[in-house]
Amino acid sequence: MSAQSSTRTREVPAPQDPAGFALAIDIGGTKLAAALVSAQGEIVAGHRVPTPDGDGEALFRALCDAIDPALHAVGLEPEEIGGLAGVGVATAAPMDRDAGTVSPVNIPGWRNFPLRDRLMDRYEITGIRMIGDAVAVAVAEHWRGAAQGRRNVLGMVVSTGVGGGLIIDGKAVEGTTGNAGHIGHVSVDPYGPECVCGGRGCLEAIASGRSIARWAAQHGMAGAPGQAVDERDAGAVAAAARRGDPVALATFRRAGEAIGMAVAGAVTLLDLDVVVIGGGVAQAGRVLFDPIDDGYARYAALGYSSSPRVVPAVLGGDAGIVGAAAVVHRPEIYRPGSHRG
Amino acid sequence: MSAQSSTRTREVPAPQDPAGFALAIDIGGTKLAAALVSAQGEIVAGHRVPTPDGDGEALFRALCDAIDPALHAVGLEPEEIGGLAGVGVATAAPMDRDAGTVSPVNIPGWRNFPLRDRLMDRYEITGIRMIGDAVAVAVAEHWRGAAQGRRNVLGMVVSTGVGGGLIIDGKAVEGTTGNAGHIGHVSVDPYGPECVCGGRGCLEAIASGRSIARWAAQHGMAGAPGQAVDERDAGAVAAAARRGDPVALATFRRAGEAIGMAVAGAVTLLDLDVVVIGGGVAQAGRVLFDPIDDGYARYAALGYSSSPRVVPAVLGGDAGIVGAAAVVHRPEIYRPGSHRG
Repeated sequence: MSAQSSTRTREVPAPQDPAGFALAIDIGGTKLAAALVSAQGEIVAGHRVPTPDGDGEALFRALCDAIDPALHAVGLEPEEIGGLAGVGVATAAPMDRDAGTVSPVNIPGWRNFPLRDRLMDRYEITGIRMIGDAVAVAVAEHWRGAAQGRRNVLGMVVSTGVGGGLIIDGKAVEGTTGNAGHIGHVSVDPYGPECVCGGRGCLEAIASGRSIARWAAQHGMAGAPGQAVDERDAGAVAAAARRGDPVALATFRRAGEAIGMAVAGAVTLLDLDVVVIGGGVAQAGRVLFDPIDDGYARYAALGYSSSPRVVPAVLGGDAGIVGAAAVVHRPEIYRPGSHRG
Repeated sequence: MSAQSSTRTREVPAPQDPAGFALAIDIGGTKLAAALVSAQGEIVAGHRVPTPDGDGEALFRALCDAIDPALHAVGLEPEEIGGLAGVGVATAAPMDRDAGTVSPVNIPGWRNFPLRDRLMDRYEITGIRMIGDAVAVAVAEHWRGAAQGRRNVLGMVVSTGVGGGLIIDGKAVEGTTGNAGHIGHVSVDPYGPECVCGGRGCLEAIASGRSIARWAAQHGMAGAPGQAVDERDAGAVAAAARRGDPVALATFRRAGEAIGMAVAGAVTLLDLDVVVIGGGVAQAGRVLFDPIDDGYARYAALGYSSSPRVVPAVLGGDAGIVGAAAVVHRPEIYRPGSHRG
């Protein structure tokens, strides 16, 4: 994904009635993005900027530098957005939805940053809906992507870390503390590697971009990165795998089979009808999805569990924006907690 | 559990208005049970008979021999039950809810037996609600047992096999094909034993009563059963473990830690607030629950996942009956599929 500033505006007229559009914001470690999104999930104007280093104020200014051009592109001034359908924010974890604060692991300048209050002050708006970035991907793929029309869906993000979100009986679920979907910390090997969370054999400790890059380097992949390992390094391992490098291929086989086993467990437990996998590492393509399919087939042998499809996400870098808009336009389905029993 | 016929009637008056009571039926490999259950979940009259060997008709006659005394105990004749709130059936798997047929693995005389139609003919009733026995336990423990008032619950049955049911956002979930909750076939060891389902390392292949008895015998437990191994044999292993037999203790440690890992995965994925474990093997007590707790702590290290409680079921042999009644009295919560989005 590009880390350069960019704007796009589709060939649609400026909204006559702003109430038909959501302002959607996506906060990630490499980019800050904003867009106006229609009730049909169409991005009518969007802008993104690289996530800067720096303190909380510098980060907030950068975020405004993404939001304001998106508004201008459809003829709105910042103080005019109160007439929009609402504002949705997809953010890297962790966040505190009740407090409206964010502390994204990969954005050290924001720790308990009062994002909701700051946005409300800056844009004179009254309500902002927040959603985790991995849940946003699940929601986006259900609303407008690879899981449209499905009733029981796991959406996964395999990038620097591994996250996910769940649609059960047609609605997003949040769990007791807002953490449902966190498949990255499900253990898939009782004797597996220790995980940063304190557990053992977590999927993230085997299949995240960071784990992939580290394992490839430790096992002597030619030209593999040495010290600093992150999602981009996993891309180098993927490129090597496509060239036939045996260590790189073994690395992706290990990671993919672990993903397949975790997915098989989720499908068996929840009787899902589709699993959508996105994120930077998933862009590796067949070198990842072939071993996912193999692991899935090995560990999901019951009739009902062997039939669901495991498919790549289709929304790519737009998933966070589309998911953030979904909680505004379809709160009865996608706003976690809105359908408590 | 007893396999002898028995009747019980509480000191409550015969129902003035049958519409306040459900006829609940529980179909298992060792017993067939029926009861009248109030809207508060109270069993006002119940009867049970041993599950006979024999063909489908012999089994159906035995079931009627459980139902009729339960009706008589509250002054109802079989042809009078149309005035009840409804009829609920909890049955060992598998069943076909749409067709109303049952094929319980441990009741070979019933294969695609048209239980719903036969009951409707015999008792002149129009609607029967069916629920899997493991889901019934989850539902019963949520309605009247150890999970009352909780929003996100896994109920497990560890007996001859391993099954389960889920309450998500306060409602029972069925999944895409009616199989949600099937934790017994979630793999907890990528290199674990082959499972009858065709998978590998399934929880059931390690922690079911059958697997416990087999493993203990294979590893030389003194006095362990040899060939035929079932839930009752697991009881012998539990007794040996309580006496300090090292192989029996190792057997329960292996099984308990596997259950703990599977439960940790479910809690991590679904952000549950309580897990209730029942079934014959769970009656082993601390020799099972201590390793469950150890396994759980090892594989659920994130803050939110380490806090839920893992507790024994409290309804015991009544869980199936109470669960079957719940789908009649509280369909909006407990009837799988009644809240499709």
